[in-house]
Amino acid sequence: MSREDPDVIDSVEKAFRLLQSFSAERSAMTVSEAAAATGLTRATARRILLTLERLGFAETDGRSFRLTAGVLRLGYGYLAALPFWEHAQPHMRALSDELRESSSMATLDGGEIVYVARVPASRSMTITLNVGSRLPAYPTSMGRVLLAALPEPELRSYLDSTTLERLTPNTITDPDELRAELRRVAEQGFAVVDGEREEGIRSAAAPVRGSTGRVLAALNVSANAGRVSLEELRGRFVPRLLETAEAITKDIAGLH
Amino acid sequence: MSREDPDVIDSVEKAFRLLQSFSAERSAMTVSEAAAATGLTRATARRILLTLERLGFAETDGRSFRLTAGVLRLGYGYLAALPFWEHAQPHMRALSDELRESSSMATLDGGEIVYVARVPASRSMTITLNVGSRLPAYPTSMGRVLLAALPEPELRSYLDSTTLERLTPNTITDPDELRAELRRVAEQGFAVVDGEREEGIRSAAAPVRGSTGRVLAALNVSANAGRVSLEELRGRFVPRLLETAEAITKDIAGLH
Repeated sequence: MSREDPDVIDSVEKAFRLLQSFSAERSAMTVSEAAAATGLTRATARRILLTLERLGFAETDGRSFRLTAGVLRLGYGYLAALPFWEHAQPHMRALSDELRESSSMATLDGGEIVYVARVPASRSMTITLNVGSRLPAYPTSMGRVLLAALPEPELRSYLDSTTLERLTPNTITDPDELRAELRRVAEQGFAVVDGEREEGIRSAAAPVRGSTGRVLAALNVSANAGRVSLEELRGRFVPRLLETAEAITKDIAGLH
Repeated sequence: MSREDPDVIDSVEKAFRLLQSFSAERSAMTVSEAAAATGLTRATARRILLTLERLGFAETDGRSFRLTAGVLRLGYGYLAALPFWEHAQPHMRALSDELRESSSMATLDGGEIVYVARVPASRSMTITLNVGSRLPAYPTSMGRVLLAALPEPELRSYLDSTTLERLTPNTITDPDELRAELRRVAEQGFAVVDGEREEGIRSAAAPVRGSTGRVLAALNVSANAGRVSLEELRGRFVPRLLETAEAITKDIAGLH
């Protein structure tokens, strides 16, 4: 984004930057801490924090500021507008119940996948990925499904601008090899990833399509490699995943 | 919010207003439609939409604008900072599996409850309430639990500023009667609501507490009145709900 662009309202950019600087590790910040976290001046950070407070997005004890549940309103307009939002979860839950593993749905935003729905496995005691959380696209099964559906110019731009980091010994880091894998994903209609983002985690993903055939989102099932072999993932999980993605696609088509 | 307040940055308020004007019904808007929906001038609406686009929160085909998954980032800082966020869902899922009904968690924001987690019942084919969605507090079981935990001045201010609408023939609309019910909720440690927001829906809710005993959120189970009698809700659902709320409270305490 060009700093000189007259269409960009400077204070709006700063307000969003400050809002996004809150996190699990920085759940409450003083004016000074917010200024340090964002690179804004103290005066600007203070003005923005007070603005966020007046708008109901932050609260303060007079010293520290923290976000309120009001910020969830900001994402809700997007989620509510997703055609699959209301219809995917019962199917995902049935899939997760049957396979006893977690199932997620994600869309692509820039070079990252963004979780828009998630059904954790019953047994799961640690949930670290939830709606709104993000991962790089290239080493994940949902990312592969979404990248495989990109028009060529967008895929080229993604590959040109993305460093394929070796996150595990399995990660595909050669752009040509990734391209070949994405072609395979497009042809077979699903992706299988074996510990490329995190060792010991396997997952399979399939596309959910709109009525025109356009890929709207990716649906996945992921499992611990100690519990589920690659053969079981391909032989038992993938067929059920494809059926579920198809059922969601049909439900969505019925809406229009 | 005073229009004259020098601490409120006008353009920030307008940007958030425009962002929140997107919805399921208005998932894509032209500059003119956005101006009409928000009361902003076309020039201002255009500048803000272009700003949102540059920041990755909106995309355009040259005519209409729609939100991107980028907006989910804005709410994620809040959710990630909730101490119960990662720990509640496995417990909620076990509860929902056992009772075969949906379970939700909500916090209070202004006079509304805001869903922060939700596990739909397997059988559910219509999910209309999801993370980030909002309901008035007074006619809901989670709202009653959260209102019952408010300090007296805040409760008084809530009752003074809220019109208790008769949403169904069952809704408590008398402030004194609501106060008495909230005292009962505080004493017994749970709330039961029978079709006060929507006829045919019954629910029970209990508080989830932080390590200091402060109520952080409300946990509920809701069911169709045709499937679950009030006796079953009280006799079978409430004890499991209380156990689950207690288990989540313990898990959170273990973190600190």
